[in-house]
Amino acid sequence: MATADHEVAENGNVEPPRSSLIFLGTGCSSALPNAMCLIQPSDPPCHVCSQSLSIPPEQNPNYRCNTSLLIDYCGGDGDHKYILIDVGKTFREQVLRWFTYHKIPQVDSVILTHEHADAVLGLDDIRAVQSYSSTNDIDPTPIYLSQDAMESIAVKFPYLIKKKLKAGQEIRRVAQLDWKIVENDCKKPFIASGLQFFPLPVMHGEDYVCLGFLFGERCRVAYISDISRFLPPTEYYISKDGGGQLDLLILDTLYKVSLVISYW
Amino acid sequence: MATADHEVAENGNVEPPRSSLIFLGTGCSSALPNAMCLIQPSDPPCHVCSQSLSIPPEQNPNYRCNTSLLIDYCGGDGDHKYILIDVGKTFREQVLRWFTYHKIPQVDSVILTHEHADAVLGLDDIRAVQSYSSTNDIDPTPIYLSQDAMESIAVKFPYLIKKKLKAGQEIRRVAQLDWKIVENDCKKPFIASGLQFFPLPVMHGEDYVCLGFLFGERCRVAYISDISRFLPPTEYYISKDGGGQLDLLILDTLYKVSLVISYW
Repeated sequence: MATADHEVAENGNVEPPRSSLIFLGTGCSSALPNAMCLIQPSDPPCHVCSQSLSIPPEQNPNYRCNTSLLIDYCGGDGDHKYILIDVGKTFREQVLRWFTYHKIPQVDSVILTHEHADAVLGLDDIRAVQSYSSTNDIDPTPIYLSQDAMESIAVKFPYLIKKKLKAGQEIRRVAQLDWKIVENDCKKPFIASGLQFFPLPVMHGEDYVCLGFLFGERCRVAYISDISRFLPPTEYYISKDGGGQLDLLILDTLYKVSLVISYW
Repeated sequence: MATADHEVAENGNVEPPRSSLIFLGTGCSSALPNAMCLIQPSDPPCHVCSQSLSIPPEQNPNYRCNTSLLIDYCGGDGDHKYILIDVGKTFREQVLRWFTYHKIPQVDSVILTHEHADAVLGLDDIRAVQSYSSTNDIDPTPIYLSQDAMESIAVKFPYLIKKKLKAGQEIRRVAQLDWKIVENDCKKPFIASGLQFFPLPVMHGEDYVCLGFLFGERCRVAYISDISRFLPPTEYYISKDGGGQLDLLILDTLYKVSLVISYW
């Protein structure tokens, strides 16, 4: 981790701050433990889930919240920016546990992979990491998403989109977000908090497109958090022959995913 | 608590099982602790919120999830039914902590007070307390709500409402719910899992009506979890001169609420 101005390496040398990745969650859409394994335990009980009652989450690799990545991006000026990918149902729990553990002071921008519950249902709690204003008079946090996701979220969270109140409607404190549409196209990058991201559209079930993202300055990182099948343009773009050799591929899939790994 | 067939009283006598109320949450809409008090602490730090890092939630009265009540209803036949009022953003956390602590094996029916995030945004996780079926072939859980709440939830959670899939749409496992409309009328009771409830419409801000509920066989209990002002029919109905003397009034309000307490 590199949240202080400088950190001390294992060899004792003082090193300049650097970027890092914090996995806030790597679980499935219902997260782990599975509640039914605890309230109606089988005989013998589920080994994975029953551990959650005895091993604290921070020591238990099988305690997994909804998939989410926090990029602690340290740019050329040494400043840290915190870029959050996905805001699922367990977002508040992830903030309380991991933001405090890693001393993360803020969220500078948000990126969404898709609009399913496990990726967006924590959006109401973005206000929990924003400054307090009873009149909502704060700078909005930029949030990047596809047009399809935007249309879905506009009906799920109308109060996070519409700024004008109806006649007689009371002001309620809600998250302030600046919605920015990105294209489902590997060749249409965008900049979030100073870092460039390339969308990586993939199939998430055969009826649904979800986005992954390619980013990194010194390292070429692909983050694809909910995939059932690669689309040819994305598979090519993250290959050696396409956009160039990856340094790190982060892939999360509920079942199997077909991938010609010889590309790497 | 009375989840076993019989329980032992303090005097050592074995008593028949009885009903009880379990407060799953009594916090505000953003719940406690406030994340900003932890990730950008003031000097001195907030005494209430900073405790959440040192005192376990089950021992800390200031660790408060979204408002929610679980009624453990033991009817004349000795069977226990579990009736959940509200399913907010922190529902899953409440299940993991309190269902396991109190040995609650299931949810038999759900009642909603209104359709704000702190009352309904955990609905996706109702599947976490339902039997597993990849084809959603399980008995749905009855859920009681007002027509206004139904209309809002139908756009927020279309996949929890519509049963028919579009052509080409994949089956995804989702919560199975049987939606039942109740009227905003103290004189129109309904039965949930064998227990009768009377709706208690109240103002929640001057632009919004929220429901409380009156219930109980041997005790007359009013549960009103999000109120800014009483409406005259409800105030009269829960008064001595209206529906009869209350045994227990549970009232949760963010700011103050005007109430002529001489009624009680």
